[in-house]
Amino acid sequence: MKQLEFITENFLLQTDAAVRLYHDYAQSMPIIDYHCHLPPQDVAEDRRFENLTRIWLAGDHYKWRALRAAGVEEHFITGQADDWEKFEKWAETTPKTLRNPLYHWTHLELKRPFGIADRLLSPDTAKSIWDDANAKLQQPEFSARGIMRQMNVRLVCTTDDPADSLEHHRKIATDKSFDIKVLPTFRPDKITQIAAVALEQRRHVTKESVKSYNNYLDQLGHTAGVTIKTFDDLITVLKKRHDFFHENGCRLSDHGFESFVYSADQIDCTEIFKRLREGQVIDEVEICFLQFAILYQIARMDAERGWTMQLHIGAIRNNNSRFFKRLGPDAGFDSINDGNFAFHLSQFFDHLDREEKLPKTIVYNLNPASNEMLATMIGNFQDGKTPGKMQFGSGWWFLDQKDGMEKQLNTLSNLGLLSQFVGMLTDSRSFLSYTRHEYFRRILCNLIGQEIHDGLLPNDFDLIGKMVQDICYNNAQNYFGFTDLR
Amino acid sequence: MKQLEFITENFLLQTDAAVRLYHDYAQSMPIIDYHCHLPPQDVAEDRRFENLTRIWLAGDHYKWRALRAAGVEEHFITGQADDWEKFEKWAETTPKTLRNPLYHWTHLELKRPFGIADRLLSPDTAKSIWDDANAKLQQPEFSARGIMRQMNVRLVCTTDDPADSLEHHRKIATDKSFDIKVLPTFRPDKITQIAAVALEQRRHVTKESVKSYNNYLDQLGHTAGVTIKTFDDLITVLKKRHDFFHENGCRLSDHGFESFVYSADQIDCTEIFKRLREGQVIDEVEICFLQFAILYQIARMDAERGWTMQLHIGAIRNNNSRFFKRLGPDAGFDSINDGNFAFHLSQFFDHLDREEKLPKTIVYNLNPASNEMLATMIGNFQDGKTPGKMQFGSGWWFLDQKDGMEKQLNTLSNLGLLSQFVGMLTDSRSFLSYTRHEYFRRILCNLIGQEIHDGLLPNDFDLIGKMVQDICYNNAQNYFGFTDLR
Amino acid sequence: MKQLEFITENFLLQTDAAVRLYHDYAQSMPIIDYHCHLPPQDVAEDRRFENLTRIWLAGDHYKWRALRAAGVEEHFITGQADDWEKFEKWAETTPKTLRNPLYHWTHLELKRPFGIADRLLSPDTAKSIWDDANAKLQQPEFSARGIMRQMNVRLVCTTDDPADSLEHHRKIATDKSFDIKVLPTFRPDKITQIAAVALEQRRHVTKESVKSYNNYLDQLGHTAGVTIKTFDDLITVLKKRHDFFHENGCRLSDHGFESFVYSADQIDCTEIFKRLREGQVIDEVEICFLQFAILYQIARMDAERGWTMQLHIGAIRNNNSRFFKRLGPDAGFDSINDGNFAFHLSQFFDHLDREEKLPKTIVYNLNPASNEMLATMIGNFQDGKTPGKMQFGSGWWFLDQKDGMEKQLNTLSNLGLLSQFVGMLTDSRSFLSYTRHEYFRRILCNLIGQEIHDGLLPNDFDLIGKMVQDICYNNAQNYFGFTDLR
Repeated sequence: MKQLEFITENFLLQTDAAVRLYHDYAQSMPIIDYHCHLPPQDVAEDRRFENLTRIWLAGDHYKWRALRAAGVEEHFITGQADDWEKFEKWAETTPKTLRNPLYHWTHLELKRPFGIADRLLSPDTAKSIWDDANAKLQQPEFSARGIMRQMNVRLVCTTDDPADSLEHHRKIATDKSFDIKVLPTFRPDKITQIAAVALEQRRHVTKESVKSYNNYLDQLGHTAGVTIKTFDDLITVLKKRHDFFHENGCRLSDHGFESFVYSADQIDCTEIFKRLREGQVIDEVEICFLQFAILYQIARMDAERGWTMQLHIGAIRNNNSRFFKRLGPDAGFDSINDGNFAFHLSQFFDHLDREEKLPKTIVYNLNPASNEMLATMIGNFQDGKTPGKMQFGSGWWFLDQKDGMEKQLNTLSNLGLLSQFVGMLTDSRSFLSYTRHEYFRRILCNLIGQEIHDGLLPNDFDLIGKMVQDICYNNAQNYFGFTDLR
Repeated sequence: MKQLEFITENFLLQTDAAVRLYHDYAQSMPIIDYHCHLPPQDVAEDRRFENLTRIWLAGDHYKWRALRAAGVEEHFITGQADDWEKFEKWAETTPKTLRNPLYHWTHLELKRPFGIADRLLSPDTAKSIWDDANAKLQQPEFSARGIMRQMNVRLVCTTDDPADSLEHHRKIATDKSFDIKVLPTFRPDKITQIAAVALEQRRHVTKESVKSYNNYLDQLGHTAGVTIKTFDDLITVLKKRHDFFHENGCRLSDHGFESFVYSADQIDCTEIFKRLREGQVIDEVEICFLQFAILYQIARMDAERGWTMQLHIGAIRNNNSRFFKRLGPDAGFDSINDGNFAFHLSQFFDHLDREEKLPKTIVYNLNPASNEMLATMIGNFQDGKTPGKMQFGSGWWFLDQKDGMEKQLNTLSNLGLLSQFVGMLTDSRSFLSYTRHEYFRRILCNLIGQEIHDGLLPNDFDLIGKMVQDICYNNAQNYFGFTDLR
Repeated sequence: MKQLEFITENFLLQTDAAVRLYHDYAQSMPIIDYHCHLPPQDVAEDRRFENLTRIWLAGDHYKWRALRAAGVEEHFITGQADDWEKFEKWAETTPKTLRNPLYHWTHLELKRPFGIADRLLSPDTAKSIWDDANAKLQQPEFSARGIMRQMNVRLVCTTDDPADSLEHHRKIATDKSFDIKVLPTFRPDKITQIAAVALEQRRHVTKESVKSYNNYLDQLGHTAGVTIKTFDDLITVLKKRHDFFHENGCRLSDHGFESFVYSADQIDCTEIFKRLREGQVIDEVEICFLQFAILYQIARMDAERGWTMQLHIGAIRNNNSRFFKRLGPDAGFDSINDGNFAFHLSQFFDHLDREEKLPKTIVYNLNPASNEMLATMIGNFQDGKTPGKMQFGSGWWFLDQKDGMEKQLNTLSNLGLLSQFVGMLTDSRSFLSYTRHEYFRRILCNLIGQEIHDGLLPNDFDLIGKMVQDICYNNAQNYFGFTDLR
């Protein structure tokens, strides 16, 4: 049974100091998952999952990419194959993902919550794992809420459109039987990313995308009881929705950009917006102005409310237009962008800071080549009031793996203060991703433990154990201002 | 004799698992060297080398750069000094290359095939190594073919101009006494890189470079029996040469670009090409359009023939114009470029993919800052049909060293599937470079072995040993579709 | 007393080979600190420091950034708080800098020269450390000169404006009681960085900045006895000052650029300069031309005099305009830039090389994403005459930490010749920074020792120990041509 030695109690912990940090300090800390993509409806309704394919493969574009790279036909990925056939293909592909984070995640998730730790997933074990996991899924502890309880979750923040009614969040909040907080996040990408829907020539706006954008704005205005005619109307509506989200516990906004192009001179978009509302096609430069003018306004709202602004910078989405037509967005055809944005980010932060309207901010970058730039850029806007006000976010998306997390942790340590870090988030669509927090904590303890072992850090577990616990939980609670947690 | 402990049997293998992977799985695999710059004439004529300088220093611009950095005069590098004097300077310089890959390569190559493993190269040992190696070079096992046989080579792909007659390849193919395949690669750089010859202001086209380009096109047309007047004529000729190369066993094309600038809107170059053929100077933007319009057409041919397209992106060549005038290209004055090309590469792949004409592709980048971008970009175009269709190429040129190879292997592992990797190539002009495959295999086994040792990979040598063998040999054979290997 | 095990004799030395290299070869080498920002007046007057805050916290913008990130109010950083209060805040913040280089530097500097090695700095130990260190500061061995003697310094190069009278350098040079050389460095940033003073829209020149620039030029001209009317006058004055600096022992120039934008076509700035002297505002493109036209002229002077040109590329300064207004420059609001400059750097070096006027050059970059590009770019201009003529400078500013130094050392090793490296410098404003050389040497010995341990380097301490000593001291002495050192 050699394979039992794979994901052991001391997985990823290479020194005695790492073992001690993880088991004595990190492991028992509860989870605040301040950025994820869980469907709040699934929590509100306490969804049960029929089988492992439904909870594990459906919607997981990380796995889909690996399947395609291994030569598996789309029929077995997003197509008409049945659940067992899809699972079988994943079992065939898993051994081909050795050294990819999927290999670790797969076995971490089988171990927790399923308790399957005696087998590696492969064609040989596919059937037995399928049967064992599906049996578990029938038990109440494996409902959406059941899993969250098992994993010691205290709070999650979902990702929500400003037009959203937040009905599910409100239902959860008033349900006395469930004491895990599920808060919304204000994510106005549909408003800022007007161009994202244009297809073939992806960066060109078309008549159709303008029309679809205007339809969305009509709907958004309707939600707020305001007819959006001018740019000021738009901001008024966003402010109303921002207030509404705040009342429902929201404390973060979130924004995704392919790159970051800000000009403090170009925040008046009255005229551009007017033409757009008239159905005119605007050009790429005008899109940029509009995007960042809206971001600037929301940042001010965030600052006024004490919210945290999250910026996700550097994904090129929907690169494959053939599959985009077939499957739509978020299907595994996104990648890391390159490009430079130090100067623009500096201008953006400085503009807000000059007006004393720079909110607490977390920047996530997708290209690790920007790590050092970013870790120093945020340091320019630490204000001496809020500890760790400007945050370099944990390894995002493609960088959410051992190497990517270690690079983020090391860069932050060398160029900023690791001790102030608000730590890990899953960014996940799945209820099975909470072991990402375990993975992160093991990696964190291993990095730090190695340095204690090597004499690079003092052998003072009170001091360092506290720092570990702060990063795992306390910093996030204090930074975001979450209260009344279980 | 402490120095005997330098390049030992377990060189680079830091764990028992690594030792086992290398000796039990990797070491005995034969070599497919699918990208090199060997002169096919040397194989056809089974060249003998007079001395170590001729086979080892002549043409090796890596060593030339090191010599110059160490303060050695050009007289002893590419100048009139005699072979012994040149070797003596290299022996003086070798100890100054500690930690540079040249130090490892030098001693790996002395060990295999020369069997000199008891001395480090230095002024003290220069004469004895010179004598011993030169004596070996007189033996038949040290001819071009002899060395290839000693090193367990099964197949090599050279790099050839579309106008080439392939006479040497044909001669080798029909020689029953030699069972190592020597196949051509279709490398149309002379056609795409019209501007590369312009000197002082290197990016400007001049009357002279247009004239020289047109002369080349005349010659190319002549080879194919077609007078090239229009852009369509050019494509017709390239297709004929592509067919001719295919008949002679070619299965790869290869293309080098300083950066990558593609616009799907600009693939009609009829008018630009017409002006060029009239002898007019075209501008930098037009050069770009023309380069990538030709690349687009060849990519389509590659897809139709089931070939693999290789893209080498990011070298600035001939930076030193004083030495370029004196020595010409490929003399050690090239370097890594920076710059962004994610969006253009995405557009290029997407354009071909939309038309279902995207061939199997290997992208090599020269700046490791692009590693993560590239490893995710190729993932957008894995088609679920050909396993590992889109490949992130092994550490190229300056990156062909331990650190560069480890970064490529780790990035590919984290962001794609290492198991599908087609592995190592020498990219070399020398018959002494086959230990680069050994070097790569040791590094690969060390990386993976370390993770088995640390519990990051399961302790399953059947599973992992097979992956190692696939990367060393089997994947390349299957991917490129090479058949009838010895 | 576990904490005594923190900065031990073998701190950072993980193998026996590393221990041997450091203690037998590196440790006893004297220090040449060829780039620092010490005030020469402090040496000339042999300044005494009242307390630890004055010598340690005043002026240290690294610590200021950390304090702000930890949430400490500006009052305790650059404000009116008294020296003890400021020290107390630093003692509170130090434990929050775990894994930041500040944590190592702090305890290295307490150990040497203060001899405080039994306590970690924290609120608990603040008072006792304050008292012990302040008592030491009253002793003559802790004056500016006393510390330099304790740290085995042989020579330092300060950083000086071309308009400087060098009176302090001359005073030191003629003082027979002090045998450490203190030489000036020619740093004409005020001349090249005309735009740097412009505030809000930081990249725009204003009437005020032009006026301030012209005032500076008047002063500079006055120093040289020349009225600066034309660009040629400016160059004449710079040449006179260059000569004057040379007479006073200067052997290096130094230049800082946010990015690097050079065009060989645009070195005639007669007309731009004329307008500027008339008080006209010039635009951003013209600023670039002017900056690099001046740099080109100084580079030629450097070449003619055998000086070394230092280029510091890639800092965005004064990002936070609110604090810039309050505190001025160099207050901890600078960060790493991104951006591409390979092609421009190539053009610049090539232009000078064509004219045989390329001086010895050290390039320091602030974004490690440029490391590999840079290490190969310098290789294009090694001339085979001066060993290591083109240097990749040691980890600069934010990169002056273990990870940054290791990356620089590894990149240089892999892509150039480590053996020719001129080594470490402090770049510091403080007399307490000489342990940075110790830190560097330990890191260097650890990297190399690890490779001896692992069999990647031969077990030859004569060979490798000599290389270590060359990098620590001998290379710098030979490269810069410093003579008559104690």
